[in-house]
Amino acid sequence: MTTPTARRHVNVELLNRLRDVLGGTRVSHGTLDGISYSRDLWPRGTLDVRRGRIENRPELIAWPETTEEVSRILRICNEMRVPVVPFGAGSGMCGAAVPRRGGIILDLKRMKQVERISDQSNLVVCQPGILGAHLERELNRHGYTLGHLPGSLGTSTVGGYLATRSAGLAATYYGKIEDMVISLQVVLPDGTVVTTRTAPRRATGPDFNHLFLGSEGALGVITRTHLRIHLLPEAYFFRGLAFKNLAAGLESLRLILRCGMRPLFVRLCDEDDTATTMNELGIAVRGCLLVLIFGGGAGMVELSGRKAVEICRGLDGRDHGEEPARVWYEHRYAEHYRQSEILAEPETIFDTIEVAATWRDIEGVYRAVRGAVPKEIRLAAHVPHAYPEGCSLEFTMTGRAKAKKDLELYDRAWSLVLDALGKNGGVLSHHHGIGLQKDKWRARQQPVAETLLRALKRQLDPYDILNPGKFDGEPEDAC
Amino acid sequence: MTTPTARRHVNVELLNRLRDVLGGTRVSHGTLDGISYSRDLWPRGTLDVRRGRIENRPELIAWPETTEEVSRILRICNEMRVPVVPFGAGSGMCGAAVPRRGGIILDLKRMKQVERISDQSNLVVCQPGILGAHLERELNRHGYTLGHLPGSLGTSTVGGYLATRSAGLAATYYGKIEDMVISLQVVLPDGTVVTTRTAPRRATGPDFNHLFLGSEGALGVITRTHLRIHLLPEAYFFRGLAFKNLAAGLESLRLILRCGMRPLFVRLCDEDDTATTMNELGIAVRGCLLVLIFGGGAGMVELSGRKAVEICRGLDGRDHGEEPARVWYEHRYAEHYRQSEILAEPETIFDTIEVAATWRDIEGVYRAVRGAVPKEIRLAAHVPHAYPEGCSLEFTMTGRAKAKKDLELYDRAWSLVLDALGKNGGVLSHHHGIGLQKDKWRARQQPVAETLLRALKRQLDPYDILNPGKFDGEPEDAC
Repeated sequence: MTTPTARRHVNVELLNRLRDVLGGTRVSHGTLDGISYSRDLWPRGTLDVRRGRIENRPELIAWPETTEEVSRILRICNEMRVPVVPFGAGSGMCGAAVPRRGGIILDLKRMKQVERISDQSNLVVCQPGILGAHLERELNRHGYTLGHLPGSLGTSTVGGYLATRSAGLAATYYGKIEDMVISLQVVLPDGTVVTTRTAPRRATGPDFNHLFLGSEGALGVITRTHLRIHLLPEAYFFRGLAFKNLAAGLESLRLILRCGMRPLFVRLCDEDDTATTMNELGIAVRGCLLVLIFGGGAGMVELSGRKAVEICRGLDGRDHGEEPARVWYEHRYAEHYRQSEILAEPETIFDTIEVAATWRDIEGVYRAVRGAVPKEIRLAAHVPHAYPEGCSLEFTMTGRAKAKKDLELYDRAWSLVLDALGKNGGVLSHHHGIGLQKDKWRARQQPVAETLLRALKRQLDPYDILNPGKFDGEPEDAC
Repeated sequence: MTTPTARRHVNVELLNRLRDVLGGTRVSHGTLDGISYSRDLWPRGTLDVRRGRIENRPELIAWPETTEEVSRILRICNEMRVPVVPFGAGSGMCGAAVPRRGGIILDLKRMKQVERISDQSNLVVCQPGILGAHLERELNRHGYTLGHLPGSLGTSTVGGYLATRSAGLAATYYGKIEDMVISLQVVLPDGTVVTTRTAPRRATGPDFNHLFLGSEGALGVITRTHLRIHLLPEAYFFRGLAFKNLAAGLESLRLILRCGMRPLFVRLCDEDDTATTMNELGIAVRGCLLVLIFGGGAGMVELSGRKAVEICRGLDGRDHGEEPARVWYEHRYAEHYRQSEILAEPETIFDTIEVAATWRDIEGVYRAVRGAVPKEIRLAAHVPHAYPEGCSLEFTMTGRAKAKKDLELYDRAWSLVLDALGKNGGVLSHHHGIGLQKDKWRARQQPVAETLLRALKRQLDPYDILNPGKFDGEPEDAC
């Protein structure tokens, strides 16, 4: 069954004006294109497709190549009150790129230029549509890394990272994307092009980079960015350790960070994650596996690595040598692709719940999430990023439900988890963002952010053309 | 000659309502108090006082002790349309705490509690009125440092750091204050108390901490903060090196940062700074002195230090051993007090110009500032903080002018410098902020920030009671 979105905004005038900007081949109103751009990787959308429902089809897709084109498109759409949804690689996990109100998908993937790599100032200037993997390959060729290496590296864009406040697997060392941004160029909903200043630091009032970072396409379209880059590590130190329980693993990580050490990668698995994901990779470890990988100057890495292992041993961590860490490292981008395989099976549900809390609260959050999910749901959890003050925590949830009950189970599980998080010091998201999935809870947990966001939205986007229906605090009962 | 500010807002009702909140002894309308709170450490204000002009006197001073009291005061002032200027230690360098429109000074120094030091989550929870030195002493007692150690440590408060986006001398290692904030509690102009969430990182929309950080008292009153803390370094590595010119010193610093090393303190002096400030400390070095101090684990510090010295030698840096760095370190808080001594002399002018730029632009900025100042001005410059992508640059400017010509020379010098900065990639401030001094240039350089700021101000403070006359983009021709 296909429920097409009513065409409400497209007319000959709009099409002609867009063709005037983009030519004939970079605007599409084809049915197949519309279906392709009707969802991102939000599992709820996949569940819909599995039952033959294709909702939220955009009316047009546009492929701009320059900031000037983005500006002209937004000016037209602002004048004609047409919704515009910025779109990268479509691998968002929460529905942020779903065109809820029809209108135009602004696919930025043709804006994929690496404009400059500065060896002097250690930064890269690039457009938002470049895939993470392509940017990283280009940087590697020059001896650099961005240090932003999400599991989805091959299926996600720089613009997507910026718009959601994404985290890479090496965030423990390099920080999240918001820690890497030097400046942004943004096209506002009325077509105005603005740039923040390229400087290492400043004290010139509030920092408006942080307004657009995480704005999920609702306040402006990011069209260029200056990002910090790093020389590739000279040397690595790999180690896998096993703990009797998660608490000992968490305490080891906490102490390692507390001493000022910053591993390049960490992955602390709970018993379930060790027994499933890690064992399936061929890592034959029991208990709770901790993968520790240090990178940097040769002497430094060895010194940090040995000290970290010593800390782990002090908490009865069993040293399994380099192998488990090397195996995980080789497969670090594979896990991202499991979702599609699992959801291809009928009657399955699947998603990842990624949260963060201080070290004080993290075990409470772990227990709260486990306690909240319905008994039909299986959870496995790991810590993918750690900071001096706390860490992130990522659960995979899998389950089975008879056909037509899958959505109900999926929604119930999420609702229970998000309710529980608010009471235990956990934040709703560490790196996937809000999208359609968590907006009701965001608005409830952050009433002031909601007020400020609405004030800014009114100022910047009075006709609500940019990604409408997001960040509006409205419940999404029916998708 | 004394020009009192016209009393426009205080009446018996206001005084009674404030006494109802604070009791009789924590509100003052005394003349001496009014004079004391009429300025901060903006040198222009000192020049005014030197000629006997005392302007901008507040009508009342209030000393709240709790968030609840701040909230009640703001609610009253919002209802009665009375200006409120948050005030810390009064050591701001740009006039941000000057009560331009009269009203009430909200002195937060009695809100000086260290509420909690979390050994588990490595953070401190404190009120805004505590002096940096007192907080640091308390943290040191527990084996920690905040890592925020400005030259003004003894004369500045945590609230002041947050409101201006301050930087400590160890910012190269620990970052600026905005890099240390986990969460804020803020009282909005209408008395609403809001808190951002305490979590290591998140992806839940724009980060509104960054809206209040740097807002210089114009958007809300910060009443509590969670800040990251660090174990005190185990070991130090001190080294002083001399370069033939500033370019070689800058290149050494750049390469050190580029290799992933983070010195605890750096100070790279130009020829003038070496020949004046450093020689006066008894550091007998010619050329451009670079002070390098590493801190951390013993082995790590030694490894980094030796590698950094090697880089400097590769650029003809002459190794002067530990002594110059140790001498600078012992006197690191002394320089801050020179301003008052110098300005006590008639006919002198003095100020610091602190800017930042990428490595690519920093030499151009250095030359532009030197080229811009009138010939009566002497400059000495140093780099107090360095980052992978660039550094800050701080000039001291001194000069002499016949009485009554001092203000004219002071204003002319600043105007020329700020004009020049915009054209050479420099930002107007790295850590002192905007205040009354740079607002015209800020508004001109950042038109979008200006628009966003006005939208937020309208939303949060429709009656313009909080620090009015700041961040309004108006020229300050007459102070």
